[in-house]
Amino acid sequence: MKKALAFDIGGTKIYSTIIDETGNVIGEIDKFSTPKTLDDIKKILKNQIVKYENDVDAIAIATAGAVNNENTGVIGSTGNLVQGYNTIDFQSFSNKKVFLENDANAAAWAEYKIGASRGSKVSVLLTLGTGVGGGIIINDKLLKGKSGAAGEMHFKMYADKRRKCTCGSWDCFEIYASGTALKLDAEEALGNKDVSTYDVIEGVKNGDKKMINILNRWQNDIIIGIKGLTNLFDPDCVILSGSMAQFVDTKVIESEVNSDIVTTPTSIRIATAGNYAGMIGAALLALA
Amino acid sequence: MKKALAFDIGGTKIYSTIIDETGNVIGEIDKFSTPKTLDDIKKILKNQIVKYENDVDAIAIATAGAVNNENTGVIGSTGNLVQGYNTIDFQSFSNKKVFLENDANAAAWAEYKIGASRGSKVSVLLTLGTGVGGGIIINDKLLKGKSGAAGEMHFKMYADKRRKCTCGSWDCFEIYASGTALKLDAEEALGNKDVSTYDVIEGVKNGDKKMINILNRWQNDIIIGIKGLTNLFDPDCVILSGSMAQFVDTKVIESEVNSDIVTTPTSIRIATAGNYAGMIGAALLALA
Repeated sequence: MKKALAFDIGGTKIYSTIIDETGNVIGEIDKFSTPKTLDDIKKILKNQIVKYENDVDAIAIATAGAVNNENTGVIGSTGNLVQGYNTIDFQSFSNKKVFLENDANAAAWAEYKIGASRGSKVSVLLTLGTGVGGGIIINDKLLKGKSGAAGEMHFKMYADKRRKCTCGSWDCFEIYASGTALKLDAEEALGNKDVSTYDVIEGVKNGDKKMINILNRWQNDIIIGIKGLTNLFDPDCVILSGSMAQFVDTKVIESEVNSDIVTTPTSIRIATAGNYAGMIGAALLALA
Repeated sequence: MKKALAFDIGGTKIYSTIIDETGNVIGEIDKFSTPKTLDDIKKILKNQIVKYENDVDAIAIATAGAVNNENTGVIGSTGNLVQGYNTIDFQSFSNKKVFLENDANAAAWAEYKIGASRGSKVSVLLTLGTGVGGGIIINDKLLKGKSGAAGEMHFKMYADKRRKCTCGSWDCFEIYASGTALKLDAEEALGNKDVSTYDVIEGVKNGDKKMINILNRWQNDIIIGIKGLTNLFDPDCVILSGSMAQFVDTKVIESEVNSDIVTTPTSIRIATAGNYAGMIGAALLALA
């Protein structure tokens, strides 16, 4: 059975393991803090590749940032990774094929192949974490766009400039639907800069009405975004993944979305491919 | 050379002509007011088909409303057409193949084959008229979604319910980017229900600053929508068509969009396939 050495390169952590062609994680999970310099990132990749490349058929990398249509490198700067990350020649690290895909795209592919969106014609995956990522699959293909950067969840929630987004623009879906957004919702509602996402979640657990209202406002913004995406893509399903997905009520989201769209009903589901979906999706793509 | 009898069925007018497989309009343009009853709509279609079907290879219909993935009929109600329009069995009118496509989708296809988006990998067409239609082409295929209804431009411009959209929901792009929207912008700015889209356009021509501001606000909302679409689809180009497209400044739109997106620059262009793009696109699809 074919195997890939898989990486998940994010702004704070780099993971690495070995995954087989059916999507099973068969290696140990190696974990590193993402270094602050380009050279140190390269060093981690090189060391892992030297260690494992003889045991595998390909190197599969799920990474932050938009990946080009040749799946060889990252386009432009990613915000969360060091400057110059887009200049890395990943193929130079190995004689085996080195395959890259954006982490949310890779996770969407894992959900499509072994997870919550299996059998769908059109699916939209949203990763709700510190930020919001997107991966869209249409007729058995990832939506990549002209340059590879499609699926970015930076459409506006307000046309009158209220909240600055991490991308530099204003009022993108990301800054209303992410974990960061939930903290901002709480700051605004409570007039307190020190409140954390954790405080909101704990408050909700303890039945604190203020915190429940804050969570509902956040969930409502997610609903508003999904309505627009559903009218645009007419997807069979919208998959929610990432650390914040556990705090939404998919039944409420599904019912509210389906009561207010011009297309036929969609299904809202929590991702099932697990924490390593990015690496699994990248491995499945690299070994396909 | 193969030919199609083509129709464009809209809320106010039905057009019909003959189009060849290269997209040339080779027939007279027949024009009818759209009847208020289902039977009268059927009668127009039947009469035209009886008259011309022996001269053509297929019947090609561009229609208001979402068209199913089999291209045989309309899904649900369309708002602009009589109730029961979705029950019409279009194939029953002819022994030749009867092919349907949504009018904005068909127009997008015409632009892609003979117009402003030729050679593009990903294109988004917006029809700016009384309402706003959308047609998205990805890798040589129209984006249809699970049911055929994809490409609907009903994503939100505000998350806090300001302006009711014609679809029954709130604050969709359509109700900020259409001709109807420009009238609403003028009503709000001037506090006068009697102002028309025409008044705004005339005012702009005469250098009226209030009217110029109203037009700019409308164009700015179009820009905000296109930013979101560009981040989602990463298109080579966004094509603007419909009766209102002549009033926008594509250079301003392009420069503002490209200065505020997370993907690579896109190109904003006015449609070039002409007023019969819907019929042309439907004919090209039917004869392909």
